[in-house]
Amino acid sequence: MGVSGVGKSTIGNLLSEELNLPFFDGDDFHPEDNILKMSKGEALNDNDRLGWLQTLNKLAIKQLANKGCIIVCSALKESYRTILSLDIQQHVKWVFLHGSFEQIKERMNSRKDHFMSSNLLKSQFDTLEEPQNAIHIDISLTPNNIIKVIHKELVEKSEFGLFGLGVMGKSLSRNLANNGFKISLFNRHVDGVEVDVAKNFKNEFEELSTALPFDSIKSFVGSLQTPRKIMLMVNAGKIVDYVIEDLLPFLEAGDILIDGGNSNYNKTKERFHYLKSKNIHFVGTGVSGGEEGALKGPSIMPGCDKDVYKDIQPFLEAIAAKDDNNLPCCTHIGTEGSGHFVKMVHNGIEYVEMQLLAEVFVMLKALGNNPDEIADILESWKETTNSYLLEITIDILRKKEGNDWLVNQIMDKAGNKGTGNWTTIATAELGIPSTMIATALFARYTSFYKDERVLASQNFEENTNPNLNITNADVLKAYQFARIINHYQGFKLINEASKSYNWDLNLSELARIWTNGCIIKSDLMVELVTVFKTTDNMLTDKTIIEKLKTVKPSIKKVVSEGVLNELPISNFSESINFLNSFSVANSSANLIQAQRDYFGAHTYQRINDASNKFYHTDWKNN
Amino acid sequence: MGVSGVGKSTIGNLLSEELNLPFFDGDDFHPEDNILKMSKGEALNDNDRLGWLQTLNKLAIKQLANKGCIIVCSALKESYRTILSLDIQQHVKWVFLHGSFEQIKERMNSRKDHFMSSNLLKSQFDTLEEPQNAIHIDISLTPNNIIKVIHKELVEKSEFGLFGLGVMGKSLSRNLANNGFKISLFNRHVDGVEVDVAKNFKNEFEELSTALPFDSIKSFVGSLQTPRKIMLMVNAGKIVDYVIEDLLPFLEAGDILIDGGNSNYNKTKERFHYLKSKNIHFVGTGVSGGEEGALKGPSIMPGCDKDVYKDIQPFLEAIAAKDDNNLPCCTHIGTEGSGHFVKMVHNGIEYVEMQLLAEVFVMLKALGNNPDEIADILESWKETTNSYLLEITIDILRKKEGNDWLVNQIMDKAGNKGTGNWTTIATAELGIPSTMIATALFARYTSFYKDERVLASQNFEENTNPNLNITNADVLKAYQFARIINHYQGFKLINEASKSYNWDLNLSELARIWTNGCIIKSDLMVELVTVFKTTDNMLTDKTIIEKLKTVKPSIKKVVSEGVLNELPISNFSESINFLNSFSVANSSANLIQAQRDYFGAHTYQRINDASNKFYHTDWKNN
Repeated sequence: MGVSGVGKSTIGNLLSEELNLPFFDGDDFHPEDNILKMSKGEALNDNDRLGWLQTLNKLAIKQLANKGCIIVCSALKESYRTILSLDIQQHVKWVFLHGSFEQIKERMNSRKDHFMSSNLLKSQFDTLEEPQNAIHIDISLTPNNIIKVIHKELVEKSEFGLFGLGVMGKSLSRNLANNGFKISLFNRHVDGVEVDVAKNFKNEFEELSTALPFDSIKSFVGSLQTPRKIMLMVNAGKIVDYVIEDLLPFLEAGDILIDGGNSNYNKTKERFHYLKSKNIHFVGTGVSGGEEGALKGPSIMPGCDKDVYKDIQPFLEAIAAKDDNNLPCCTHIGTEGSGHFVKMVHNGIEYVEMQLLAEVFVMLKALGNNPDEIADILESWKETTNSYLLEITIDILRKKEGNDWLVNQIMDKAGNKGTGNWTTIATAELGIPSTMIATALFARYTSFYKDERVLASQNFEENTNPNLNITNADVLKAYQFARIINHYQGFKLINEASKSYNWDLNLSELARIWTNGCIIKSDLMVELVTVFKTTDNMLTDKTIIEKLKTVKPSIKKVVSEGVLNELPISNFSESINFLNSFSVANSSANLIQAQRDYFGAHTYQRINDASNKFYHTDWKNN
Repeated sequence: MGVSGVGKSTIGNLLSEELNLPFFDGDDFHPEDNILKMSKGEALNDNDRLGWLQTLNKLAIKQLANKGCIIVCSALKESYRTILSLDIQQHVKWVFLHGSFEQIKERMNSRKDHFMSSNLLKSQFDTLEEPQNAIHIDISLTPNNIIKVIHKELVEKSEFGLFGLGVMGKSLSRNLANNGFKISLFNRHVDGVEVDVAKNFKNEFEELSTALPFDSIKSFVGSLQTPRKIMLMVNAGKIVDYVIEDLLPFLEAGDILIDGGNSNYNKTKERFHYLKSKNIHFVGTGVSGGEEGALKGPSIMPGCDKDVYKDIQPFLEAIAAKDDNNLPCCTHIGTEGSGHFVKMVHNGIEYVEMQLLAEVFVMLKALGNNPDEIADILESWKETTNSYLLEITIDILRKKEGNDWLVNQIMDKAGNKGTGNWTTIATAELGIPSTMIATALFARYTSFYKDERVLASQNFEENTNPNLNITNADVLKAYQFARIINHYQGFKLINEASKSYNWDLNLSELARIWTNGCIIKSDLMVELVTVFKTTDNMLTDKTIIEKLKTVKPSIKKVVSEGVLNELPISNFSESINFLNSFSVANSSANLIQAQRDYFGAHTYQRINDASNKFYHTDWKNN
C-alpha cells in the first residue's frame, strides 16, 4: 500500500518471486463502472470503492485458504484497510511504502508512461492515513534492499513476544502458537536456576516449532516485527517496573507493552502515563482462567487506548475463550488501569463465590452430610445454579485419600494474593459498600489466626451439635440469594469506578466476556449480559427482584439458624444484612449525623429541606 | 546551670535584679555531710546529691507559689535536672551558660578567690550532659548582653506556638493559656476572608492577654523560645506539606513541629523522616475530644522520638484530660506515624460505637419505643455500660423540635472524614480482620445512597411491622457483646501494627489515655486498662470471656430476630458472626485452599504435617 508512484507494483512483483506467492494488482479488479468513471477523469468516491474493496477482501480470503498472496492497493484510509482485512485481520500483513511528496513527484515525472498532476498527488497525500500496524518501508532504498527488509520482517521476525515463562506465560505462548501466530519467547537466565528455559520450553511442544526462544532481551526485542507487541507475564509488583526499564532501551516509538499479570490498577495507570511520555503504548490486561484457561482460552480484559487495542485485537481475541455466540471473551475495557481494575473486581467477586461455597459446605455438613453426600447435593444444584466454581467444588468434595476425604486433611488457613485486599481498599477509597468482598477477605484473614482460633474454640466451647431447622433447599436458595447480592455489589463497584475515572465501561460486555474462560463464569453471569443491556443497577431489574423475593425467606431462615447454632457464615449473613440495610428508606444514619454534630459540630441536613442547607444544634440544652 | 566558672552566680544575681525575683545559690543548701566531704577534698557522688537536689526542688516549688525565683546550680546531668524540676516541669526555665574548656580555664585562673585544677574542670566537662530544652548562652558575651538575651527569651518570647486557628486550634490555644503558658498564635491572612484572625481571637478571651498574635510566619516563628515548639492545627492532607515548606526557611535545627490534625499515619511517617533529614523534630499527634475536649482537656496521642517527647511533655500533659488517678490522658505512643495510627483506630472504634448505638435505636424503635422512651432505657443502661457516646445519644434522643423529636428530621446520609476509611484500608493491608470497623464504615456508605435505598424499599417492600421475640434487656446484652468484640478488634489491629512496624506500643497505657477526654471514653475502657496489663489479647482474659458467655445468648437472639424481621443491624450481626468464625478450631478455609489449588495450582498445607510442606493435587481424576 501507499500513494501512487511509490512503486507498489514493482515491489509487489519482486516480492511475489521472492516468496513464491501469487501476485495481484488491485487496480485490475475495478468494476466497469469505476473504469468508466476514471476514464472520464472523474475521481472515485468511497461508495464507488466499496464493492471493489470487498472483491479484493474475498480474493484475499480465497487465497489464504491456499498459501496466501500478495495484493497491491493504495489503501490510503484506515476504513479501506478495515474492509480489505475483514474476517482475516490476524493474517493480513501490511507493507507501507512511503516517501516524501517531492521524491515521488520527481520519480513520477521521470517515468514515460505515467503522468500525474501535482494536485492529484497532493490529494492522495491529504487522503493518506498512515497505518500504525504495518511494515514501514522507505522508498529511497533500492528495490532489492526493500525486498530484503520485507522478507526479513515477514518471514524471519515474530508477530508477538511473550516475556516471562511461568505457568501462565507458557500456557499463553502455546495458545498463541496453536492459533498460528509466530511468536518469540523470553525467559531470563539465572545461573543454575533458570537456564535455557525458553529453549527447553520450545523443544517440549510441537506447536512451538516456529517460535524463537531467547534469554537475551536485546535479541528478543530485535526478533519482533514493528510495532512490537510484547506481553509481560511476570509477577505483579516492583518487578514489572524493572522489566519495563530493562526493555525500554531496545524499544521504539509505537511499540506496545502488555502487562498480563495481576497488577494494581493504580500502578497500571502510572505506568500507562509514564510510557505514554516515552511514546510506548501500555496495555494493562486482566487474564482470568488459571493455567488451563490460559492454554485453552482465557477471559481477557485489556485496558488501553482504543486505537492501540486494534493492533493487539487479532492476537488477544484469537486466543480468548468464546462465548455462547462464539464471540471472543475479550473486549476493549477502557483506558488507563481499567483492565486491571475490572480484573481486580472479578477476583473480588471470586473471593465471595468461593467463601459462599465454603459456607454452603458448613451448612450442609451441619445438616449431617459427609463430603460425598454434599457433592451429590451440589450436583443436583447444577441444573438451576451452575458455575465453574460449583463444578470444581464437587470434584474437590469427591476426592478421597484412603478412607478419608482429602479436603478433611487440608490446613484451614486460606491464602490470598492481594487482589481481594485491593478490592476492599478500592471500595473503601471510592465510598462504595462492597460489603461481601470485604467479608470474604476477612474470612480468609480470620482463618489465618489458626492458633488463636483453636484457643478461642476452647474458651468459648464450640457448638459441636448443631440443630438446624432448615432444609437443603433452603441452603440452595440462600446461596442463590447471596450470589445475586455479590454480583450486584461487584458490578456496582465497577460502575461507580467507571463514573469516577471517566472510563465509560460497558457492564453488559463485561458480563459477556466473563461467561466463559474465567473462574467466575456461571449461568447467572449469562443472565446478567441481558440484564445489563437495560440497566446498570441489577436491583431494579424485575427478574432479579422477583428472584430475590422468592429466595429471601430462605436466606433469612438460614442466617437466623446459622447464628443461633454458632456456625461461621459471615458471608451469607452479610448478604441479607446488606439488603436489609439497603432497602430501608429511612435509615438510622440520622442518629449518627446527630452524634457527629454533637461532638464535632460536623452539621447535618434535614429531610424536608431540599436546599441541602447544613444545620448545627446545641444538643445539650433541651 | 553550667560547669564551675561560667559565671552562674554573677549572671544569676544580675538577672535577679533585672526581673525582680529572689536569688538563691544552690551551693548554700548543701547538708552538713556534703560540706564536710567537700572540705576534705572528696567528690560528691549521686547519692550525696539526691537530698540536696530534692531540697532545691522543694525551694523552687515553694517560691513558685509566690512569683518564682532564680536558682543557680551546676545541674550537669539530665537526671539532676529531672529531680530539680519534679512536679513543676512546665514552669522551669533552664538557662545554660556555656563556653570552651580553654576559655573557662583561663577565666578561672584569673580570678583571685577561685582556684580549680584542670582535672577537676575536665571532669565537669565529662559529666556535663548538655540540656536540649534550655536557653543556651555563650559566655563570651558581656554580662549585660547576657542579661538582655535571657530577658528577651524569658519575658518577651513565647513558649509554644499554635499554627492555625480553626475550631480545634482555638480551643487548644485557650487550654494552653489557661494552664499558664505564654503562647504565640498564627493564622494566615486571606484578603476579605481571614483578616486579623489571631489578633481578634486574642482580644476575645481574657486568658489570652499575654498571647502574641501573628499573620506573618516569619514574625510568628521569631517570637518563640528555642527550641521552638509549634503545633500545626490545619486540615489534614496536602496542606500540611505546604505549611511545613512555608515554615522551614525560618526554623532552626532542634525545633519541633507537632501535627495535631487527623493526618494519615503513612504520610506522618514520611514527614517524620523528611524533617529528620533537616534536623527538625516531627511529632504526629492524635487529639481526640472534639471542640470541648480541646478546650477542657483532650486525650492526646503523640508519636515521636522518645527524647523529643520530653520537650513537649510539660505542655501536652498540662492541657490533657486527667484520668481517674489524675494522671494526664497523654503519653508517648511510639515513633513515626504511631500517634496518628492509634488515633485512626480510635476513630475506627468510634465509628463502630456510633453504629451500634444506631442499631440499638433501630431495635428499641422496632420494639415500639419512641425516642424519649429509648432515652429512658439508655439512661438505665448507664449504671452498667456507660460511655460518652451513650450519654450524648440520650441528649440527642430527648431533643424536641415542636411536637416532634429533632432526630426524626435529620437526613439519614452519614458523613465520614476519612479515618474510618483509612482504618479499613489499614486492616486490609495488614491482613487483620477488623470486620466491625469495615461494617460500620460500609453502613455509612450504604446510607449515602439514599435515592437507591428509597427505590429498593419500594421494590422489596420494607417490613414496617416487625414482630420481635426479644426484650430490652436482650438489646442491652447484645450491645455489651458487640462492644467487647469491637474493642477486641480495635486493639488487635493496634497490636498487630505495633509488631509489624516495631512500635512497641503499650495497650494498657493506650486504654488509660482513652479513659477520659476522648470520644470513646467508657466504663469498658477503664476495665481494659487492667485487662491489658496481663495480656494483649482480650479474648483470653477470664473476666471478658465470662462476660461474653453471659451475653452471647442475647446477641444470638437479637441478630436472629433482627434478620428475620429485616432490620438493618449489620454491625450487631457482624459481632456474633466474628466470634462464631473466630472460635472455630477447624474452619471451612480448607475448601477454599482446595479450590485455589484446583484452578490456580496455589498448593496447600496439611493439618497433620508440621513441616509446613506445600502440596498440589490433580483434583479432576478420582
